[in-house]
Amino acid sequence: MSLFEDNKKRVIDDYERLINRKNAVADCYNGIYDRYVNPVLTADHAPYFWKYDMDPKTNPYFMERLGINAVLNSGALYMNGKYYLVARVEGNDRKSFFAVAESDKPTEGFRFHDYPVLLPDTEKEETNVYDMRLTQHEDGWIYGVFCSESKDKDSNDLSAAVAQAGIVRTKDLKTWERLPNLKSKSPQQRNVVLHPEFVDGKYAFYTRPQDDFIQTGSGGGVCFGLCEDINNPVICTEEVVISPRQYHTITEVKNGAGAVPIKTPKGWIHIAHGVRNTAAGLRYVIYVFATDLNNPSKLIASPSGLFIAPHKSERVGDVSNVCFTNGAVVTENNDVYIYYASSDTRLHVAATTIDKLMDYTFNTPSDPLRSVDCVKQRCELIKKNLEIMNK
Amino acid sequence: MSLFEDNKKRVIDDYERLINRKNAVADCYNGIYDRYVNPVLTADHAPYFWKYDMDPKTNPYFMERLGINAVLNSGALYMNGKYYLVARVEGNDRKSFFAVAESDKPTEGFRFHDYPVLLPDTEKEETNVYDMRLTQHEDGWIYGVFCSESKDKDSNDLSAAVAQAGIVRTKDLKTWERLPNLKSKSPQQRNVVLHPEFVDGKYAFYTRPQDDFIQTGSGGGVCFGLCEDINNPVICTEEVVISPRQYHTITEVKNGAGAVPIKTPKGWIHIAHGVRNTAAGLRYVIYVFATDLNNPSKLIASPSGLFIAPHKSERVGDVSNVCFTNGAVVTENNDVYIYYASSDTRLHVAATTIDKLMDYTFNTPSDPLRSVDCVKQRCELIKKNLEIMNK
Repeated sequence: MSLFEDNKKRVIDDYERLINRKNAVADCYNGIYDRYVNPVLTADHAPYFWKYDMDPKTNPYFMERLGINAVLNSGALYMNGKYYLVARVEGNDRKSFFAVAESDKPTEGFRFHDYPVLLPDTEKEETNVYDMRLTQHEDGWIYGVFCSESKDKDSNDLSAAVAQAGIVRTKDLKTWERLPNLKSKSPQQRNVVLHPEFVDGKYAFYTRPQDDFIQTGSGGGVCFGLCEDINNPVICTEEVVISPRQYHTITEVKNGAGAVPIKTPKGWIHIAHGVRNTAAGLRYVIYVFATDLNNPSKLIASPSGLFIAPHKSERVGDVSNVCFTNGAVVTENNDVYIYYASSDTRLHVAATTIDKLMDYTFNTPSDPLRSVDCVKQRCELIKKNLEIMNK
Repeated sequence: MSLFEDNKKRVIDDYERLINRKNAVADCYNGIYDRYVNPVLTADHAPYFWKYDMDPKTNPYFMERLGINAVLNSGALYMNGKYYLVARVEGNDRKSFFAVAESDKPTEGFRFHDYPVLLPDTEKEETNVYDMRLTQHEDGWIYGVFCSESKDKDSNDLSAAVAQAGIVRTKDLKTWERLPNLKSKSPQQRNVVLHPEFVDGKYAFYTRPQDDFIQTGSGGGVCFGLCEDINNPVICTEEVVISPRQYHTITEVKNGAGAVPIKTPKGWIHIAHGVRNTAAGLRYVIYVFATDLNNPSKLIASPSGLFIAPHKSERVGDVSNVCFTNGAVVTENNDVYIYYASSDTRLHVAATTIDKLMDYTFNTPSDPLRSVDCVKQRCELIKKNLEIMNK
C-alpha cells in the first residue's frame, strides 16, 4: 500500500475502534451517581472526513487539513429510544460550532452525523456560537438555546466579547429554523435555558443577566423570566434570582443554569454550575437545586455544595479545573444520564436515576454558610452514625 | 445482602484498606529529603461516617450526605511517641474546618478522631477557618494559630474576604480554648506562626502584614513581632521583615511562614512558602531560611531557591501548582517529617533529619539574584567537580 493508504487505514481503524469502544462504570463510589471510565465524546470522535482531505492527489501525506481541537459542552435529548448530543465542537481555529452525535446507548457508541449543524446566518456580527441547551417543549418543537457571541465594538480590548442567547428550533435535529436572539434588560446573557413547559401560558427562560442589572446589588445568580412570543423573544417580566451567588460557597464568583430542568414528582431538578476563584484561576463545579412544580421560579431545595467536581484526568484540559453540564436525559425507566464536559476538552457521562436524584436533592442538607455551622451539621450526622454503629 | 449493606461494605472496606495502606520512599533522589509515594491524608481519609448517613431507613441508597472535597494544609505535632496532624478539611460546601488525625508512624496510618475540632464560635463574622500551625509553647500550652476569614463588608465584591489570625490553645488536642484574634497594625494577617519560646519574656509571632503597612515599601515578606499578653494578643512591636519578598525569586509575588521554626544547634530553621506568578496562575513552592538562636528575628541563612516544588501528580488539584506546608515534627532521634500539601488537595510527607536540614540550610549557597551571577556560581561548582572527577 502507499503511504497515503497506510495512513488512511490507520486513521480510519483508530476512529472505528474509538467509536465502538465499550464503556464501564468507574471505580469511585458516592452512592449518588456513577461516573464512567471513558469520555463519550472527544476531539477524536470527530469523523476523519471532517479533518482530512481523502484525495491522494491533493493530500499525498494524508495530512489533517482542518483539525478539531475539542468536543465539549453538549445539549442532550432522548427521543424514540435514541440518545442525541448536540455538541460544541471547536476547530483548531478556536471557533465553535454545533454537531449532532447519536447512539443507541447512553454511555458509548456516539457517532456524529455526516455534517455539522448548519446554523442560519441571521446575526451578522456573530463570531462564535457555543453551549446549546436542547429543550423538548410542550409546544411540539425542539428548541436549541445557545450563546451567540460578537466582538464588543464599544471596547478597545480586542478580547472583549458580547454574549446573547441565540435560539433555533427543529423537529428532526436536521433542519434548524433560527429565531431572533433573546432580548432582555441585560446587555449580555450567557447560560440561558428554555423551560420545557409553558408557565402562565408563556415561554419561561432561565437567564443570567449581567451583574449591573441585578436590581438588589445582591450579586446575581440564575434568574427566571417569561416571554410572550417565542417568534419575537423578549423577557417581559422582571428577571428574579432563583439560585443566588453567595459568599464563600461554590457559586461565589458566578453561577449559571446547566441542563434543562428535570421534572420529578417532587419538583423541577436543576443541574447547574458554580464558579469560585483560586490562585490558579477559576474552578467550575456542577451543583443542584430544585424549584416548585407549579412555580419553577420558586426555590424549594438547595443541597449543599458541589454535585460533580473535576476528578482525576478530568482536572486538566484546555481550561483546567472545569466541570460543566448543559445536557441531561431521562429515559422511560427513569434512568438519568448527565452529560458533563471536563476542562473544556471532552464530554463525560454520569448515570443516576430519578429516585436517587430526588433523594440527593431533597435529603442533602443545605449549606449553613459558616464553617462553625458546617461542623455542627456534620457532628449531628457523626453522632447519629456512631449511635447506630455502636448499637 | 441488601443494596444498602452491599454498598456500605464496599465503602468501609475501601476506607480500611486506605488507612492501612503501607507507604514507601519515592523513587526520586536529591539527598536532602525523601518524598513518599502515597499522600498521608486525602479526602478519602475522612471517615465514611462523616459523609454517609449509616441508617438504611433514612439513606436507602447509601448515598453521601455531606461529602468531603479535600484534606490539606495540616499543623503537626509529635507527642508521647505519636504523630498528630491537625488538618484543614474542606467539605463539598467549600467551608474548611479542623480535624485531628493520629498515627504511630510518621508516614502512614493516619486516622481521624471520631469528631472534628469544635472551635469556639467567638467571632460572629467568621465564615471560614484554615491552615492551623501547632506550637508546643514553653508556657505549657499547645497553641493553634490559624486563618480566620470573614467577608469584607466594605467591598462591593462578593468574593472579597478579610483574614485575621485566630488563636486557640489545648493540652490534649481534644478541648480547645479560644483566645481573641491577634491584633496588629495590619488590617489583614495570613500565615501567622507562634514561636515556641519566649523572646525577651514575650510571645513572638511570625506575621505577614498587608503590604500597605510595610513602612519601607520594600514589598514586605515574613515578619516578626512581639506580644506581651497572649490572652489579649496584640503585636506591640514594629513588625520587622525577616525573609523579604524579592524580584525574580521564588518569593516575588508573596511569601509566608510555614511550619513552626525548628530549633537546631546552628539556628532556628524555618520552612516557609514563596509564590510567583505565571500565565496559569500563581505557583507556590516551599523554601527554607534560618534565624539566630538568640534572636529569631535575625536572618542568618538563606539557601537559594526552592526546597520542595510540586512533583508529578502533586502538580494538579483544586488549586494546581501549589506546594504548601504548615507543619513539621522532630522526633527524639532527630528525624524530621515535613507535612506538605499539594495543589490544595491532599497531604504528603517528606522525611529528613536535623543534620541534613542543617547541612542544606547552612551549606546551600544563597541566591545571587541575577542570571549571570547564578551561572558564575554554578560554574564554580562545575569547575571544582570536574577537577575532582578528573583526578
